[in-house]
Amino acid sequence: MSMENRSLVTIDDLSNQEIMSVFSLADEMSDSIMEQSSLCQGKIMASLFFEPSTRTRLSFEAAMHRLGGSVISVAEMQNTSLAKGESIADMARVVGSYADIIVIRHPWEGAAKVVADYAGVPVINAGDGGHEHPTQTLCDLYTIKKERQTLDGLKIALWGDLKYGRTIHSLAYALARFGATIHFRPGSGLGLPEHVTRKLIRDYGGILERFNNIEGAEKENIFPLDAIYVTPSEPHQLTNIPDVNIQIELEKGIDALYVTRLQKERLESPVTGSELEKGYPVVNRKLLKGKQFKRTLVMHPLPRVDELAYEIDADPRSMYFKQAAWGLPIRMALIALLLGAKQVGVSEKKGLTITPKIDYPVYDRDSGVTCKNKKCVSAQQTEMRYIKPMFKIVANKPLILRCIYCDHETQPPYIASSKWHSGILEKRRYYSSDSYILERIKSEYLIIFDSEKEAQAEGYKPSEYAHISVKKQ
Amino acid sequence: MSMENRSLVTIDDLSNQEIMSVFSLADEMSDSIMEQSSLCQGKIMASLFFEPSTRTRLSFEAAMHRLGGSVISVAEMQNTSLAKGESIADMARVVGSYADIIVIRHPWEGAAKVVADYAGVPVINAGDGGHEHPTQTLCDLYTIKKERQTLDGLKIALWGDLKYGRTIHSLAYALARFGATIHFRPGSGLGLPEHVTRKLIRDYGGILERFNNIEGAEKENIFPLDAIYVTPSEPHQLTNIPDVNIQIELEKGIDALYVTRLQKERLESPVTGSELEKGYPVVNRKLLKGKQFKRTLVMHPLPRVDELAYEIDADPRSMYFKQAAWGLPIRMALIALLLGAKQVGVSEKKGLTITPKIDYPVYDRDSGVTCKNKKCVSAQQTEMRYIKPMFKIVANKPLILRCIYCDHETQPPYIASSKWHSGILEKRRYYSSDSYILERIKSEYLIIFDSEKEAQAEGYKPSEYAHISVKKQ
Amino acid sequence: MSMENRSLVTIDDLSNQEIMSVFSLADEMSDSIMEQSSLCQGKIMASLFFEPSTRTRLSFEAAMHRLGGSVISVAEMQNTSLAKGESIADMARVVGSYADIIVIRHPWEGAAKVVADYAGVPVINAGDGGHEHPTQTLCDLYTIKKERQTLDGLKIALWGDLKYGRTIHSLAYALARFGATIHFRPGSGLGLPEHVTRKLIRDYGGILERFNNIEGAEKENIFPLDAIYVTPSEPHQLTNIPDVNIQIELEKGIDALYVTRLQKERLESPVTGSELEKGYPVVNRKLLKGKQFKRTLVMHPLPRVDELAYEIDADPRSMYFKQAAWGLPIRMALIALLLGAKQVGVSEKKGLTITPKIDYPVYDRDSGVTCKNKKCVSAQQTEMRYIKPMFKIVANKPLILRCIYCDHETQPPYIASSKWHSGILEKRRYYSSDSYILERIKSEYLIIFDSEKEAQAEGYKPSEYAHISVKKQ
Repeated sequence: MSMENRSLVTIDDLSNQEIMSVFSLADEMSDSIMEQSSLCQGKIMASLFFEPSTRTRLSFEAAMHRLGGSVISVAEMQNTSLAKGESIADMARVVGSYADIIVIRHPWEGAAKVVADYAGVPVINAGDGGHEHPTQTLCDLYTIKKERQTLDGLKIALWGDLKYGRTIHSLAYALARFGATIHFRPGSGLGLPEHVTRKLIRDYGGILERFNNIEGAEKENIFPLDAIYVTPSEPHQLTNIPDVNIQIELEKGIDALYVTRLQKERLESPVTGSELEKGYPVVNRKLLKGKQFKRTLVMHPLPRVDELAYEIDADPRSMYFKQAAWGLPIRMALIALLLGAKQVGVSEKKGLTITPKIDYPVYDRDSGVTCKNKKCVSAQQTEMRYIKPMFKIVANKPLILRCIYCDHETQPPYIASSKWHSGILEKRRYYSSDSYILERIKSEYLIIFDSEKEAQAEGYKPSEYAHISVKKQ
Repeated sequence: MSMENRSLVTIDDLSNQEIMSVFSLADEMSDSIMEQSSLCQGKIMASLFFEPSTRTRLSFEAAMHRLGGSVISVAEMQNTSLAKGESIADMARVVGSYADIIVIRHPWEGAAKVVADYAGVPVINAGDGGHEHPTQTLCDLYTIKKERQTLDGLKIALWGDLKYGRTIHSLAYALARFGATIHFRPGSGLGLPEHVTRKLIRDYGGILERFNNIEGAEKENIFPLDAIYVTPSEPHQLTNIPDVNIQIELEKGIDALYVTRLQKERLESPVTGSELEKGYPVVNRKLLKGKQFKRTLVMHPLPRVDELAYEIDADPRSMYFKQAAWGLPIRMALIALLLGAKQVGVSEKKGLTITPKIDYPVYDRDSGVTCKNKKCVSAQQTEMRYIKPMFKIVANKPLILRCIYCDHETQPPYIASSKWHSGILEKRRYYSSDSYILERIKSEYLIIFDSEKEAQAEGYKPSEYAHISVKKQ
Repeated sequence: MSMENRSLVTIDDLSNQEIMSVFSLADEMSDSIMEQSSLCQGKIMASLFFEPSTRTRLSFEAAMHRLGGSVISVAEMQNTSLAKGESIADMARVVGSYADIIVIRHPWEGAAKVVADYAGVPVINAGDGGHEHPTQTLCDLYTIKKERQTLDGLKIALWGDLKYGRTIHSLAYALARFGATIHFRPGSGLGLPEHVTRKLIRDYGGILERFNNIEGAEKENIFPLDAIYVTPSEPHQLTNIPDVNIQIELEKGIDALYVTRLQKERLESPVTGSELEKGYPVVNRKLLKGKQFKRTLVMHPLPRVDELAYEIDADPRSMYFKQAAWGLPIRMALIALLLGAKQVGVSEKKGLTITPKIDYPVYDRDSGVTCKNKKCVSAQQTEMRYIKPMFKIVANKPLILRCIYCDHETQPPYIASSKWHSGILEKRRYYSSDSYILERIKSEYLIIFDSEKEAQAEGYKPSEYAHISVKKQ
């Protein structure tokens, strides 16, 4: 199987099978890491990091060097043409004419997709704002697989900053796809973003059960939980049990406890010694004495701050330095595959929970609705000049759009049709998006508006259902 | 022909013939870009960028890697020894002892010349303040040549920020040397600097015709012009025609329209939404419908901001991404030549307009006149400790000096002679620089002063012609 | 002799003999600098510079490239995970899993030792705050040896900022070890730190003679001195002579005059045009006319500011550009040795003054005394989470501890014993550190406190000698 010329923007760009293939190649690479130096000779990787990084950037660059390739590098934003007001599409086109592969980290959500759309060479997302960080997820999964021999039917706890932690988002999607049960234990106010929760349910078919009694659980010295994602691949009684029964669930033991630091740099206002830090979960020697953690892998994407005590560094359950170290063979494998320097045999299917990828219809009109996420690449002044907002229509009742760049969802209030028939659809009228009329409009004619004002600016008038349905909402 | 160990500081460091030789080698390089990886093996390029850059730095570094060489890199100013107060001469000497070739970008005008003077290895100017950017000019000319098959007798329009755009300055000189007619259309207040205009006329022998009716032209829907540079190689009637006749000239069609962004970072005071931006020319689909642009190459050194609409990106006339992409083979060719890894056959002369290089006498006394350009490298506190101001004496009536570093011109008021003869020159007297006495002083004895005060400080007294001639001026 | 897998944190990590071996290999390297490109092929150097640098970083990176290796690089602090609050130990462990050797510059004193403790690969200190800069010392000594053919019995003057100049500290130790007589001439208020002075005397056995009449000396047009370090290897009359006799000493001539710039970035408060700058020694053409400088090598680690005039650059005694240039073969040799790519024959002993390394007992209790140097790595908030303060017990009367990270000394006031015997040591009592009881406590039982408060917090009560001895101090 060849993966040549493909990009890795979100973890969903790789099927479960392809992930396993990357892992086989990583095994091969790590067995003979110093003997790969002719694989990518003469190739150039552009390493573009517009956000702080040490680990990720250095591991990508080290990986390329181990493969015999060269690296051109941008390590910060201030001193680049982006600071002169250049769009990332222009940058991508130009760098794509110098390099054979691009690795990009950028603060805007969806930026890596734009780079992949314009570069003309394979692009790897090394983190786009609070959106995704798929290669970290590969390192995480690889570590679990090395220790547990399988990725199937795992029980994984995700702790800490689940809101801003992009590694969490990519990892949750991947775990769901491999049929894991996921226990969420966020810091206070740092729960999974709505759009991530919804995608977990909508795209991967599981059930999310929320728990309200976090403080109560903590008092009773139970492992406190915010929510559990129950995979559809494993019939489960959990949905019927009350809060107090979580303990039973937990006592079966956790396969991995994945903690993240508070992503201070993404908070809207700077926080110190605040509520956020107070309620933040901490993993230390005492906690790990709990029965449920007896065989638990302790994982962290690093850098850590205070949520992971140094006293457990020597504990055999501590995996975080291994996670970082596996970054090298994983990224070597990935680069070699995308550059076509290596092909992989199709890995045996056993043990692979396959979640079928859903092909949602796409909405990509020039005018109309825009993404409401302020950090979305499509909402940036320099990028609006050329980016056309695009959405997947993920639901109809109510109408829900998912931004193709940042995965944030929006529920737009008005619709219209670019085609009309007397008696069926009134000429140039707009309707409420939850009106029955939605079903009658073919998706290629569908027009969606963010507001009445916008609809009217485009020359549409309210239909008789426009105002009524506004009330209904 | 070998170009080994030479530097490229200004575009005039290459003859027209040598430019053509670089182009032949670039053709060869771009035909087999992945097969050059042994040419510069073992060689090291120092890539020193003390100003923001993505495109230029990455293309130089990619070029060196494609040639099999290594790169050591400085991507910004704050974290270097220059921030500790080191002079660029010291930096050049030290880096020159580590690297085989240096690429330098620096905010001071003339900085690249200083580096070339001290490094002991070939130096390439990748932009020195608002002065020059010769390798961008090579990319520009190469793009035109690829598309038009010739560089002779072209009609080129230069639009936008002609004042601060260093790419404009290098390009205008080169175009003049290849016998182009150049149409200048600056943003308001952003016309060519005086010293560039004068150099065009003085060194390349053409005529500059200014037009006053820019607004009028715009109203009549004519392509508005500030000035036309008419090459001496092509006898031309333009100088006799009034403003309204520009249209006739224009209707013959423009070979290339070269636009630049407003170089905000070089403005003396920060500007937003100002006059400057209001009057700024914009190239878009509508404009390109004009008859005169039917076969016009649309060029831009990038990054663009708002002066070049994204809607024309797919237009076959749009050349800007090609310009950027050609940066790779052009810079590969140049590096290989300066490192002596390649030699070039003398290219056939046909079609080459040769402008003889003028050897102006040089003024380089320790004391006396200094460059008035505040951004000149010779005017910087850290550099004054060792840089001796040097000038070319480009005219005698009046006496005009051109700074050897930044090309700015100055018209110094006083002169004297270090040698005197009773009856001919009075002992230790100074004269007005426009006095007839200037002709009598041999250039090796000439002393030039910026002010009477300075002349007197050096022990000179006013001659009887000193004060009179002040009045004459 | 193999030096594989060793680190170079302080100049004392290399014996005199090993320094000579590095020099032999550097000779070999510099004779055939372009022919070493297979030595470290496939190896990766991480070049981590968390403080401004051009020269040192570029020379290390160029050295690695000349050896055929690759480089991954961090050129500043702001854009790294350290800015996210990561500890340098975590960074070291992670980078150590990507690279084969690490070069580190960091503002904290002792940072390089921490990196070496955790990285798992060889680490080279490229400057840790005001502490040490051992590879600069290698370049300095190599330059002297190349010019003088020997390092024995030299007379070296160290001028300028002796307080903050880390190159000075490493160099002074090395010179002492090679039996040099060192003349100190600091800028006003910029004398050698106390702990450096003490280490010179304590570890290398020489005598330090101070002079008070600096101003007087200057008036008499004598070379003014603050102090002279007299090596034990050369019996010397100096200690008996009064201030006025320095001239006799000086007239014998100085082998090398080593000047440094004022390390403005390390001053506690920013200084301009201040006292510090006023009294700063300047080396210029006039000074070098002095008889004592007739054959003196003029040395400077660069960058220079005003303390070294450009007018002497062409003087054959000026060595500073040579010092910089030798950085390449010296660092090539060092890297090759630490990576095990080269081994060195044991160099002939003649001319080597061997100072036996002193094995002081180490104090490394979890609780108790801490380093008082605010810039010590062990005193940083992010590092205290895991660094255990450690000290060498360098003296007993009074008790003096030397921080194992930054070499600063502290004289802690209280001691106790973790073991007690009735009649000999009272149970859980603390004593003054200058009490006779210190001799009775075996070093493995010794507990040291910074204050009574701390001793009491640990459950100790004052012994009857605790308060008395406080008065004695």
